[in-house]
Amino acid sequence: MPDLSNRGQKMPESPIRKLVPYAEAAKKKGRIVYHLNIGQPDIETPQVALDAIRIIDRKVIEYSHSAGGIGYRTGLADYYNQLGFNLTAEDILVTTGGSEALIFAFQSCMNAGDEVIIPEPFYANYNGFSQIADVNIIPVTSSIDNGFALPPISDFEKKITPKTKAIVICNPGNPTGYLYSKEELETLKEIVKKHDLYLIADEVYREFCYDGKTHHSVLNMKGIEQNTIVIDSVSKRYSMCGARIGAFITKNKELLAVALKYAQARLSPPTLGQIAGEGALSTPQSYFDDVVKEYVSRRDLLIDGLNNIEGIKCPKPGGAFYAIAELPVKDAEKFCQWLLEDFEYKNQTVMIAPAAGFYATKGLGKKEVRIAYVLNKKSLLNAIKCLSEALKVYPERIVVKEKQFS
Amino acid sequence: MPDLSNRGQKMPESPIRKLVPYAEAAKKKGRIVYHLNIGQPDIETPQVALDAIRIIDRKVIEYSHSAGGIGYRTGLADYYNQLGFNLTAEDILVTTGGSEALIFAFQSCMNAGDEVIIPEPFYANYNGFSQIADVNIIPVTSSIDNGFALPPISDFEKKITPKTKAIVICNPGNPTGYLYSKEELETLKEIVKKHDLYLIADEVYREFCYDGKTHHSVLNMKGIEQNTIVIDSVSKRYSMCGARIGAFITKNKELLAVALKYAQARLSPPTLGQIAGEGALSTPQSYFDDVVKEYVSRRDLLIDGLNNIEGIKCPKPGGAFYAIAELPVKDAEKFCQWLLEDFEYKNQTVMIAPAAGFYATKGLGKKEVRIAYVLNKKSLLNAIKCLSEALKVYPERIVVKEKQFS
Repeated sequence: MPDLSNRGQKMPESPIRKLVPYAEAAKKKGRIVYHLNIGQPDIETPQVALDAIRIIDRKVIEYSHSAGGIGYRTGLADYYNQLGFNLTAEDILVTTGGSEALIFAFQSCMNAGDEVIIPEPFYANYNGFSQIADVNIIPVTSSIDNGFALPPISDFEKKITPKTKAIVICNPGNPTGYLYSKEELETLKEIVKKHDLYLIADEVYREFCYDGKTHHSVLNMKGIEQNTIVIDSVSKRYSMCGARIGAFITKNKELLAVALKYAQARLSPPTLGQIAGEGALSTPQSYFDDVVKEYVSRRDLLIDGLNNIEGIKCPKPGGAFYAIAELPVKDAEKFCQWLLEDFEYKNQTVMIAPAAGFYATKGLGKKEVRIAYVLNKKSLLNAIKCLSEALKVYPERIVVKEKQFS
Repeated sequence: MPDLSNRGQKMPESPIRKLVPYAEAAKKKGRIVYHLNIGQPDIETPQVALDAIRIIDRKVIEYSHSAGGIGYRTGLADYYNQLGFNLTAEDILVTTGGSEALIFAFQSCMNAGDEVIIPEPFYANYNGFSQIADVNIIPVTSSIDNGFALPPISDFEKKITPKTKAIVICNPGNPTGYLYSKEELETLKEIVKKHDLYLIADEVYREFCYDGKTHHSVLNMKGIEQNTIVIDSVSKRYSMCGARIGAFITKNKELLAVALKYAQARLSPPTLGQIAGEGALSTPQSYFDDVVKEYVSRRDLLIDGLNNIEGIKCPKPGGAFYAIAELPVKDAEKFCQWLLEDFEYKNQTVMIAPAAGFYATKGLGKKEVRIAYVLNKKSLLNAIKCLSEALKVYPERIVVKEKQFS
C-alpha cells in the first residue's frame, strides 16, 4: 500500500473517544457503562426543535446558502442581539458544529507554522484542529490549585513571538468549567490590542453559568471588534449535539469573506439541523432555568461526591458541565482503561476521559481526568460509587503519603 | 486588524457560487433566475427519507459514533454489497457530505506539498480541498473534442513525480458527465499499481448512467484494494443535498484508522441526516428508474437545444447531470455575470457556472460553462431560450468566422 500521510499519523486520537472500543467491549460483556467521558447530555432537546423537524413540509432536502439559510441567520442575530451583541445576519456564518467554526477560524487567521496561545488544559480537539491547520499551540498553563483561573498576563506575554497570531479561550471552559470574570477578559483585551492578535472565543457553554455569575462575551468588548471571533454551537445550549450546527461570528468583514470561501468549498451546513436550530430559537426561558438548575445540582452532587473520596481533588466549576479531577493514580489513562477492561461494581463501571490529552505541555495532567456531569443524578451517584470502589481496589493506586504523618 | 492568512486569501472562490450576489440582485429586481449553476436538483427526495424524519421519536438529538451510527453503516454496507463491493460496516466512515470525505482522503493520504493527478476539467471544489490540504493538483487535460474521455495513459505517466501520491477521478464526471468505461479504469489500475498510488474515486453520481451503459466502481477492481478509496454521498442519489451525508469507503484498514482520527476531531456526522439517509436506503427501484428517465429527457432536451444555438458546442454526457458547453464568447465568466446583471428575456435570466474554475491549467475553459440540468423541462426550455436570446445581443459575442466562408 502507499504510505499514509505523516500528518495523518501525527493526528491525535481524541482522548474523549479513544477508549470507545474498551467501552464497547465492556457493554458486550453485559456491563452498564456510565458515559461521563463525553459532553453528550441526557437533557431533552427542546420540544420546539423536535417539532420543527417533525412537521417538515419540504419536498426536497436542499442545500442552504453556504453561510446558512438567511431565515435562520436572521433568527440567530435576534438571539445574539438580546445578549447585546449588535449583529446582523451578515456577521454570522452557520457552520457544521462549533468544530467546523474553529477549523475555519484557524485556517482563515493563521498560516502553517503560526502560533496560537491557549490556556491549558483546553478542549482536547483543539489539538486536532491545530494539526489540521498545521499551526502550533503554545500553552499557557492554568492550575488546578486556583480552580484554573486565567494565568497571569505575564505568562501570556512571555509566550508571544513574531509567529503568534491568535489567542483561543473557551468560556465557560471545557474541560475546566472555569468562567472568566470581566476583569480577566479585560486583561486579555489589552494583550490582544497591544500585539494585534486575533481573539477566538469558544462560547458554546454561554448559557451554563452558575451561582449567580453571568457570562461576559468578547463580542461585547469595545475596541477589538476587528480581532474578535466567537465560536458558537446549538449542541450544548439545546442539547442537540447531533444537529451539527454551529456558528462563526465576527464583525470583521474581510475575515468573514475568507471564512465564507472555506464554507463554499463544503457547499452548505446541514439543512435539517438548521431547521431544528431555527425551531430551537423559540425555546422558552423556563427550559434554560430548569436545565441550569439541574446542572447545578448535578455539579454539586459530583464535586461533593468526588472530594469525599480519599485522594481526589476537584475544584468546583462555575460554568459548563465538566470538571477536572486529580486522582490518586500515576497514569489516569491507564486507570480509565482499567475501569472499562478490568473493573466492575455490581456489573457497572464508568467511562471518563484522561486529561493529559487536554494539555499541550507534555507530562501535565497525567493524574487528572475530565468528568462530564451530563447524566441524571441517579446515574451520577452510581458512577461516583463506582469510582470510589474502583480506587479501593485499583492495583496502581498511589498511597497518599501525607496521611501517614497526620 | 491582524493579517488574514495567506492561504485563506489564496483559497479559491467557488465558481459555482461566486456569482450568487449577482443572482440575488437580479431576483431583487423581480427577475426569474434559472439556477443551472449548481447541482441542486428539483427532483423530490424519496418519501421514505422524509418520513423517517417526520416520525422521529428521539427525545435527544445526540451525537452519533464518529464513523456514523452502526445501524446506518450496516444498512449502507448492504446497499454496497448489492453492487458487489463486498464490504462491512467497518469499511465505511460516514462523513458530512462527500466534501468532508474528500478532505479526509487528501489529509490522510498526502502531506503538504504532495501532488495529486486529476483529469481536468474537474469538480471545482477539488481546488478548495487541495488548498485546505496544501497539496498540488497536477492536471491531465481531457478535451471537449472527444467528449472528455480519459486522457491517454502516457499523459498520466508524464506527470508522475516522486511527490505524486494519488489520482482522483470523478465517475460519472462532474462537470463533464463523462462515464468511464471498464477499459479506461483498467488503464488507471495499471498506473496505480505500477507507481503504488492512491486512487480516490468520487462516485456520487453512480446511479446516473444513461443509454444502457453501466457504472464500474473502483471497489470492484481486484489487486488495488489497499490503494482505493471511494467517495460517496446521499446528496445526488436521493436528491437530498442538504442532508450533508457522505461516506469515505476503503478496505485499507490503516488508512481508515487515520481518517477516523480526523472524524473524531469533529465528533460526529449529522444525526438527522443519517436518519434520513437510513430511511432512504428503502427507496424503491422505481424511484431511480423514474429519475434516470427524467434526467435522460432533460439531458437530450438541453444538449439538442444548446447545439442548435449557433456557436455553441456541447458534447452529450453519458452520466451525472452536468454538461460542459463551449460558448461563442471570449470570457465565459464575464458573460455569466452579464446574464445576471444586464440581461433579461421576458423578465427571466439564467445562472450558469463559468468553467475556468474547473480547470487547474491557467487559460483553459475560458470559453466554457458548466450547465446542470437539474430543473424541470419547462424551466430548462426557458433557460435555453434565454441563452439563445442572450447570445444574440451579447456585446462581446465572438463572430464565428468560419461561418462567413461556408
